Amino acid sequence: MRTVWLNGEWLPADEARLPVFDRGLLFGQSVYEVAPVIAGRIANWPHHAARLASSLRQAGFADATEWPPVLAELVARNALDEGRVYLQVTAGSAGDRDFLAPDPPPRPNRFAFTQPALLIADPRAETGLRIVLRPDRRWGLRSAKTTQLLYAVLMKEEARAAGVDDAWLVEDGMITEATSQNAHIVDARGVLVSHPVDSGVLPGVTRISVLAIARELGLPIEERPFTPAELFAAREALVSAAGTLVLAVVEADGRPIGNGKAGPVTAEIRARYIARLRGEGA
Amino acid sequence: MRTVWLNGEWLPADEARLPVFDRGLLFGQSVYEVAPVIAGRIANWPHHAARLASSLRQAGFADATEWPPVLAELVARNALDEGRVYLQVTAGSAGDRDFLAPDPPPRPNRFAFTQPALLIADPRAETGLRIVLRPDRRWGLRSAKTTQLLYAVLMKEEARAAGVDDAWLVEDGMITEATSQNAHIVDARGVLVSHPVDSGVLPGVTRISVLAIARELGLPIEERPFTPAELFAAREALVSAAGTLVLAVVEADGRPIGNGKAGPVTAEIRARYIARLRGEGA
Repeated sequence: MRTVWLNGEWLPADEARLPVFDRGLLFGQSVYEVAPVIAGRIANWPHHAARLASSLRQAGFADATEWPPVLAELVARNALDEGRVYLQVTAGSAGDRDFLAPDPPPRPNRFAFTQPALLIADPRAETGLRIVLRPDRRWGLRSAKTTQLLYAVLMKEEARAAGVDDAWLVEDGMITEATSQNAHIVDARGVLVSHPVDSGVLPGVTRISVLAIARELGLPIEERPFTPAELFAAREALVSAAGTLVLAVVEADGRPIGNGKAGPVTAEIRARYIARLRGEGA
Repeated sequence: MRTVWLNGEWLPADEARLPVFDRGLLFGQSVYEVAPVIAGRIANWPHHAARLASSLRQAGFADATEWPPVLAELVARNALDEGRVYLQVTAGSAGDRDFLAPDPPPRPNRFAFTQPALLIADPRAETGLRIVLRPDRRWGLRSAKTTQLLYAVLMKEEARAAGVDDAWLVEDGMITEATSQNAHIVDARGVLVSHPVDSGVLPGVTRISVLAIARELGLPIEERPFTPAELFAAREALVSAAGTLVLAVVEADGRPIGNGKAGPVTAEIRARYIARLRGEGA
């Protein structure tokens, strides 16, 4: 059984529990991070740490956990070679329910666990993903990585019911992102177009590398929202996220993107990103 | 110490805990209800039960808990005379984290607790509430009573920082509701105006009684969104919610509403609503 870290304790996964009065459970006042693990090493930690700090600020509470030694020991105790580490910080439990936290606020509750996964040998890297477009009805503070995730759950359920892999979300005629990944296209001109992270989408850590690699490859880049029509006319479409790295999207609402197969630019970005992760992990 | 009900067990409040893999905690896939208790009796249960069923449908999971005997015993065990009962149902724990629940889904986690409160002798009934207006950036599925409540928490914190009681939320130039209460005005013509519950606001149980009592009083009623300008020009403003009944709003963004005191129509609606609750509880 996995070992879970909870508020400084190492526990069997099924013994890690939080009070029902936890503000994450009652109000969704809770933030999280997911980082990839390759060859037993956690990648991109400084970017995840920076985003966690930003999420905490936006979610209205503070925490000063020193995560790197916790996560390193978590990976070691669970003998994780490849997969993900997940951490969550909630606004704690004051022992009763009130939208307003007491002053001083309760101590945050913090937990972390590992998930083994084939990130590099992911079979979806060959086949690509099929997606549907759905309206983006999430809340406004999407630049914070909070547990306000029910809409993402519901849209993933709709995608599953439609027999596809995921949904991309559309707001005011523009694609914002996938349910849990940043969304990009290589448009009809060969430009990598990616929604800017200054509003309405998560500042993806993997996205930073995708754009850096695209620059390396000499691709022109435009950070701007794009439309479903641009997606349908694109040469390639791709998603990026810590938990799945970089994957092609080959079909949207039943229409092929490009030639309907995982595209060469996506494959090259994915290969170079994996090389970076291996380099960092070495 | 309070006794909390959790999945069929009666526990001291500080022993009621849920797994960190609970989908309410990880994804906010969780719904709740709050009902008033007057003279030891739970009021309006059939309306709360109907809304709970609707919330569960919208949140994408099922639960068949027979709540009335649980809540009645909870009130008795805690010797609650006046206050609230709170219940929450989460989409359960599958022992790992995945946006998509396994099929069949895990069993929901369910808990309930009591909160003593002076609902009838609430001093705010005399003074009224002062509020600020804030943008409504909550998610789109507000007709479900889910725990996607972080935005409400943040706006209540902003109201506290501004030295007032609460915030009313504005979307596309129209007031939707208060952070955790339905919002209404008695406008300059003497019409009770209340946002319709068919979109964007919670179908409040107390709101049903407010409108029924307004009809009893012969007030004209319009169920439509209203603007901040209409609020500022209103004779009275009021909020309704299970946890606080009916309260006047006497100031918004530093400007007095009407004569700046709790208004007579609000007082009459509140008095009649309390009489109804006492009648039901008798």
